[in-house]
Amino acid sequence: MPDKAMLLFSGGVDSTTCLALAIEKYGMGNVIPLSIRYGQKHEKEILAAESILAHYGIKGVELDLSQVFAYSGCSLLAHSDEAVPESSYAEQLARADGAPVSTYVPFRNGLFLSCAASVALSLGCRRVYYGAHRDDAAGAAYPDCSEDFFRSMDCAVYEGSGRALRLEAPFIDKNKVQVVAEGLRLGVPYELTWSCYQGGERPCGVCGTCIDRRMAFEANGVQDPAQTHDYI
Amino acid sequence: MPDKAMLLFSGGVDSTTCLALAIEKYGMGNVIPLSIRYGQKHEKEILAAESILAHYGIKGVELDLSQVFAYSGCSLLAHSDEAVPESSYAEQLARADGAPVSTYVPFRNGLFLSCAASVALSLGCRRVYYGAHRDDAAGAAYPDCSEDFFRSMDCAVYEGSGRALRLEAPFIDKNKVQVVAEGLRLGVPYELTWSCYQGGERPCGVCGTCIDRRMAFEANGVQDPAQTHDYI
Repeated sequence: MPDKAMLLFSGGVDSTTCLALAIEKYGMGNVIPLSIRYGQKHEKEILAAESILAHYGIKGVELDLSQVFAYSGCSLLAHSDEAVPESSYAEQLARADGAPVSTYVPFRNGLFLSCAASVALSLGCRRVYYGAHRDDAAGAAYPDCSEDFFRSMDCAVYEGSGRALRLEAPFIDKNKVQVVAEGLRLGVPYELTWSCYQGGERPCGVCGTCIDRRMAFEANGVQDPAQTHDYI
Repeated sequence: MPDKAMLLFSGGVDSTTCLALAIEKYGMGNVIPLSIRYGQKHEKEILAAESILAHYGIKGVELDLSQVFAYSGCSLLAHSDEAVPESSYAEQLARADGAPVSTYVPFRNGLFLSCAASVALSLGCRRVYYGAHRDDAAGAAYPDCSEDFFRSMDCAVYEGSGRALRLEAPFIDKNKVQVVAEGLRLGVPYELTWSCYQGGERPCGVCGTCIDRRMAFEANGVQDPAQTHDYI
């Protein structure tokens, strides 16, 4: 029986590239994407995730962990009054003085990876994929995307599962430009992905992640399809 | 402002001893117990947890993560057809041939600790306590109670939280006899705790955890109050 892999899948650029890579490695029928609601301000990324899975013709698992973040003031959450910053990560970090950015959801990737580990063990997967990359960890913006976090979390999952499961983060030492380069090679349907932290009809173009992805496409000599795609 | 600690709290012997220890160290008002439903066959431990908190006069946080284990066949879960084994852990391990016991809930402690980390960061805690001990990890019965797991998970929480949070497992190198000895010193109301995997009116006395706790009290020269307490 071939190995099966579970994938943390948000419908954004990084996890969709990771999905394409996992499909290339494990085969279409052996990849199980896991999408998790956590109380976001909008549904856009969940809808994007669903349309990407429809594109590939595979079924995923959905969970709702909103209750875990009921006490968090993170600006991405529906119950938070704080606005999503309209500036690049670099500008936000300069203001944050060593702390994570306001869009850091407390230990979200640790929680999501643990959740994926529990479901993966139940469904007979031997790998959990996730699309963290070097740019997200830079300057402590998202500490749960760092290589130190990933190495420890992989050990915790390996030991805590009775050595039945490992994590893989194929982009952990790559930047977003390289992630997009890999995705272009793999024919990722980037026009279906959603990254923007706002829930408008179109991506806002001015939040950290909108700026980030536009630059990654430009560096690959391609226009970000989010700028022209008809999302309606 | 004094440090605050979050505690994984199930209402059993180990986590209730851990609660008493955390209260001794941090002070009554600085400990926040977190109790998590995960789809157990019965409510007994949740009710025990509530009566123990009433005894100490503190309020906890409750979460429900049942959906994460919807695909698991673990014998502790309400949707599982598998019966809880009526034998000691040692006998179960001899049959399991190096695999975890059937009452291992896949990566439960990893998931619960991650969850506690997310809530702890939201509520300004700097520590997460949990009551894993050496006997639970012995022979790979519960790999998510092992010292290797704990060390890695602590690093993952520390790095993934931007170095804002650490785990503490004060019993990780102790056995259950020593845990109970510590609890007797601290005056833990063991008559209120519930360990039994079955949901009967009284503890069954024949499942792994019933056998385990009776032996731990006996080794301390005390009768397990679960054998005589009126639970109704």
